[in-house]
Amino acid sequence: MSRRPGPRADRADVRGDILAAARALFASRGFKGTTMRAVADGAGVDVALVPYYFGNKDGLFAASLELPIDPHEKIDEVFAQGLDGIGERIVRTVATILDDPVVGPALLGLMRSAMTEGAAHDVVRDFIDNVIIEGYARHLDRPDARERAALAATQIVGLAMGRRVVGIEPLASMSVDEVAAHVGPTIQRYLTGDLAPGPTRTS
Amino acid sequence: MSRRPGPRADRADVRGDILAAARALFASRGFKGTTMRAVADGAGVDVALVPYYFGNKDGLFAASLELPIDPHEKIDEVFAQGLDGIGERIVRTVATILDDPVVGPALLGLMRSAMTEGAAHDVVRDFIDNVIIEGYARHLDRPDARERAALAATQIVGLAMGRRVVGIEPLASMSVDEVAAHVGPTIQRYLTGDLAPGPTRTS
Repeated sequence: MSRRPGPRADRADVRGDILAAARALFASRGFKGTTMRAVADGAGVDVALVPYYFGNKDGLFAASLELPIDPHEKIDEVFAQGLDGIGERIVRTVATILDDPVVGPALLGLMRSAMTEGAAHDVVRDFIDNVIIEGYARHLDRPDARERAALAATQIVGLAMGRRVVGIEPLASMSVDEVAAHVGPTIQRYLTGDLAPGPTRTS
Repeated sequence: MSRRPGPRADRADVRGDILAAARALFASRGFKGTTMRAVADGAGVDVALVPYYFGNKDGLFAASLELPIDPHEKIDEVFAQGLDGIGERIVRTVATILDDPVVGPALLGLMRSAMTEGAAHDVVRDFIDNVIIEGYARHLDRPDARERAALAATQIVGLAMGRRVVGIEPLASMSVDEVAAHVGPTIQRYLTGDLAPGPTRTS
């Protein structure tokens, strides 16, 4: 008798196939344009299996945020080398991730969804808030850490949009080195530099 | 006999009503979610009048980009005071416009549309490219003007997203003064400062 995978192994594959199809569709069509049926078709599974594993489209979307990388881990990695040069390392890491053929489209799908109303918008705000901003902020030991991390997030999101979502030249074809050199100092200043002499202190 | 407006005056009003309804709908529902019928309903006109004035939805969208302000004029105004302090003036102007109850939603609708595929995406890329980036670049008399303007555009777009589209705190509730003080130096550096010693020059 040949060895067959047990039900547990089967399930893991179906779940993974559905998630991969969902990520591709959220990326290309956004949250609203993606149907459970299209995801099932993309994964080559019966349509009933999508709600079986993920409940509804919101659940599927939330699960699809489990990106092929662990963002927390990536952020910890980048900060592990200290705050010196952190701006350039963050930009380099982000630009490299955006160019990754698997992770890049997943992140861009996230950003597309952030534009729409409703559940996807909230999930994305939670992601930017709890993963990116809190991820940066907890490595900055200062009272204005969240404010600084939020400013850094605006530049990161804008960079991703300009370079990969909207596709503006000469930004889109700049090398990762160039982007890191141009934008790194912005992130460095937001996280560790002199911010706003005046208005913030007096209000 | 009472005076009645002639056909010319009639037309101008209908056109304006349709555009106002279209701007509101593009802003709240995005390009894909907006139908010609909904625009006609919003304007209180017969549905046949929308294609009569604007051809199709693309034409209507393009016309709705004629924002209640003239972006070219605003940019010229901001640059008229010279490059000293230009970063802070640009951020202050953008943050003020985003808070405007009429212009703000129109611009955010633009950004939502930039996320979708197809015609709206192209129109928005053209807008960012020809209006914002070219608008900044023509005031910078240097060979790398477009590259600098594109970098500035990423921060402006990211700021608008973080502050008004996604709504990240404490960014969303910062005063215009604070935002200008925090983000102004980023734009100043991109437009007039030292950029990227190394990579760009050697490639």
